[in-house]
Amino acid sequence: MYQTLKEEAWEANMEIPRLNLAIYTFGNVSAFDPDKGVFAIKPSGVPYNKLSADSMVLVDLEGKVVEGRLNPSSDTETHRVLYREFSGILGITHTHSPYASGWAQARMAVPVYGTTHADHSPETIPCTLLMSAEAVNNNYELETGNLIVSTFRKQEKDPANMPMVLVSGHGPFTWGKSAAQSVYHAAVLEEVCKMAMFTQMLDPKVQPLPEHLIRKHWERKHGPNAYYGQK
Amino acid sequence: MYQTLKEEAWEANMEIPRLNLAIYTFGNVSAFDPDKGVFAIKPSGVPYNKLSADSMVLVDLEGKVVEGRLNPSSDTETHRVLYREFSGILGITHTHSPYASGWAQARMAVPVYGTTHADHSPETIPCTLLMSAEAVNNNYELETGNLIVSTFRKQEKDPANMPMVLVSGHGPFTWGKSAAQSVYHAAVLEEVCKMAMFTQMLDPKVQPLPEHLIRKHWERKHGPNAYYGQK
Amino acid sequence: MYQTLKEEAWEANMEIPRLNLAIYTFGNVSAFDPDKGVFAIKPSGVPYNKLSADSMVLVDLEGKVVEGRLNPSSDTETHRVLYREFSGILGITHTHSPYASGWAQARMAVPVYGTTHADHSPETIPCTLLMSAEAVNNNYELETGNLIVSTFRKQEKDPANMPMVLVSGHGPFTWGKSAAQSVYHAAVLEEVCKMAMFTQMLDPKVQPLPEHLIRKHWERKHGPNAYYGQK
Amino acid sequence: MYQTLKEEAWEANMEIPRLNLAIYTFGNVSAFDPDKGVFAIKPSGVPYNKLSADSMVLVDLEGKVVEGRLNPSSDTETHRVLYREFSGILGITHTHSPYASGWAQARMAVPVYGTTHADHSPETIPCTLLMSAEAVNNNYELETGNLIVSTFRKQEKDPANMPMVLVSGHGPFTWGKSAAQSVYHAAVLEEVCKMAMFTQMLDPKVQPLPEHLIRKHWERKHGPNAYYGQK
Repeated sequence: MYQTLKEEAWEANMEIPRLNLAIYTFGNVSAFDPDKGVFAIKPSGVPYNKLSADSMVLVDLEGKVVEGRLNPSSDTETHRVLYREFSGILGITHTHSPYASGWAQARMAVPVYGTTHADHSPETIPCTLLMSAEAVNNNYELETGNLIVSTFRKQEKDPANMPMVLVSGHGPFTWGKSAAQSVYHAAVLEEVCKMAMFTQMLDPKVQPLPEHLIRKHWERKHGPNAYYGQK
Repeated sequence: MYQTLKEEAWEANMEIPRLNLAIYTFGNVSAFDPDKGVFAIKPSGVPYNKLSADSMVLVDLEGKVVEGRLNPSSDTETHRVLYREFSGILGITHTHSPYASGWAQARMAVPVYGTTHADHSPETIPCTLLMSAEAVNNNYELETGNLIVSTFRKQEKDPANMPMVLVSGHGPFTWGKSAAQSVYHAAVLEEVCKMAMFTQMLDPKVQPLPEHLIRKHWERKHGPNAYYGQK
Repeated sequence: MYQTLKEEAWEANMEIPRLNLAIYTFGNVSAFDPDKGVFAIKPSGVPYNKLSADSMVLVDLEGKVVEGRLNPSSDTETHRVLYREFSGILGITHTHSPYASGWAQARMAVPVYGTTHADHSPETIPCTLLMSAEAVNNNYELETGNLIVSTFRKQEKDPANMPMVLVSGHGPFTWGKSAAQSVYHAAVLEEVCKMAMFTQMLDPKVQPLPEHLIRKHWERKHGPNAYYGQK
Repeated sequence: MYQTLKEEAWEANMEIPRLNLAIYTFGNVSAFDPDKGVFAIKPSGVPYNKLSADSMVLVDLEGKVVEGRLNPSSDTETHRVLYREFSGILGITHTHSPYASGWAQARMAVPVYGTTHADHSPETIPCTLLMSAEAVNNNYELETGNLIVSTFRKQEKDPANMPMVLVSGHGPFTWGKSAAQSVYHAAVLEEVCKMAMFTQMLDPKVQPLPEHLIRKHWERKHGPNAYYGQK
């Protein structure tokens, strides 16, 4: 019944080691089917080379496991909150890639320094605040989702225009219109964070790209008159 | 009719992922035939592993697609301007390689710090100014070409001696006597930008190489009495 | 008689080049059998691609070679001290991985900047003092073990909670409940040191993660109510 | 007649791309036969994947090509000077590896920050002065050799204890008791330069390792009572 969803999730998870976005069991990807209200996610603590489509765990939007013999990723509650609150996203990726984690650990948002960034979002990549002790003790992984959502609400960011976030002291979460696109955004985020660190090292006082250049790159790929790619 | 040109362009494009100069669909390479006034270029937004010689798009110097079922690269107009204005170049490469993009995003020209640089050009690698809002709104990709050309005119640089440029806030364009040589220059530029960043990190006040060392390395490879390589 | 132990040690040693944790003959891994009071260790100065299970050297806790035709690793005495003093550890890894060695050469302990660190230890990764001339001249490798042990005693660290140490001016030693886990900790340490360096480069005044976040990540993987992974 | 020497040189050259010490045609290795007074060296400007043992060029200590259809490396005169002046060396490697070139371009000697360095030399890795215009115009490559030799004489360094040098504004030369060992030293130098840069980034005021630790590591591998490795 969920075969396609499980295969989509499994294939997207296998991109994580292939793209060097995490080592060992770090990181996880899920794929969401909005009609069934169910997502397929990596099992917790299993190395990537031991995964198969059948080892994916199916979880509904109330957090109940609906299929699968293994425990789902410990970050499942974070994924669940994001699927509930960010309408239209069909895949989520979490990694510990080193440049993105470096920015997250420095608790710094990533300014738009160049077109590689603007091609994927017209805005500063947000970094959440550190989670309070109260929220950690309540339900850590669910509160991680809430923290991301409240960061987007406060900063008036639209998850459709900003498919990436840094969780302070932790690392990146990314999403997209499919599990595969969420991994794509995780790889792009790592590249953008690497370039942005190099940029600041070369000129610590560098200014963000002017708005007209940001808009142009965003619009040519994502605007109403986008002309990048094939029809 | 254009089979050789398409194969040359395709093979040069395939060097981009092989040399880790760009991820996914980023970057593009074209090959120019000056007799026919036509260049073959990567189609827009197609991943490298889906390319074939037959998927290359042929465009003439007026910007008209003369062969090919796919949309050409969104940067086609930039290539077109460079082929028109920089006589003698037969291949162009654009990448988002991280060190070169770091310098471009810092909006900094790359001084000649060593012989690896001088072996490929006797001059500072120029970085353009940021493009004005007016130029962006006119015809962005064509104006990117114009910006490169005007940077070279103002700084009295000869594209035959300086096969590389950084477009401010964006990334590198390189060229050469063939598509393959333009990719070679893209790989060399990335290496030179990496070394130059390390150099500045080790000594932020480092001075460029003295002129007599720059000239020697340039001349032994490219001067009238060059003696590097085989006859 | 020691076949399983030798195979465990050999397989763990082969992870060193696979994970790019050392080049050539650098580094070494051992596996300990507490019932027999014997550990299997890499022979000294032999390249990884020349190793086999049969080339492992078996050494007892008095430092006597009990099996093997080759000289054991020059760091054997360090391993021996650690197996004697740190009860419960069954594998030890030493590498010269570049980020961990950079911190060791800077003689700096690694603060807990993020959850990747906290997932593996709730504490600052200690860096020993430099060894005195007297200790060096006495028995260098044995004194390296003593230095690690005295660092843990003085700082009241438990090797079960902190499976990593940086030896000042030298490099990392890591351990675990198996030889394989000690290599896992060596790879994680390199990743944590890389991220921590990036973090300090982005914000030289960054503060460590607050205690409630450190405890949460440590406890969810290693506490009495751990829920990470499969049962 | 020179078959063994040519094969030794070819195999050592092939380590350069395998170890990522240079791209394209950069770098070169030679192997010296002191009885015949001849060395085998990479031909100039030929990519590594086009090399064979038969393409190596044989040159005597007067600089005469004694066998080979191709031009020898443009750096042949540097190799020749080193074989004449540094008795006992049987192989030489030149690369443009990025960390070593970064230090050379910053014109900085590399202090002994750790045991990875001390395992291979007990001293600061020297960096030459920049070559004068007069020397460049005389015979650049021969003067590069002279510059290295005079640096060692002035600093009273013994090439047997210090198998590495950085040529200011250019890059590294390394040597050893065989062509293979000279490449080994080139790879070690790159690793040492990487670690030393990380060390200075973490602590710009870091001090070199104390002499008793440097001597210990050097002596246990290279002293009269060396005990590292197999007999």
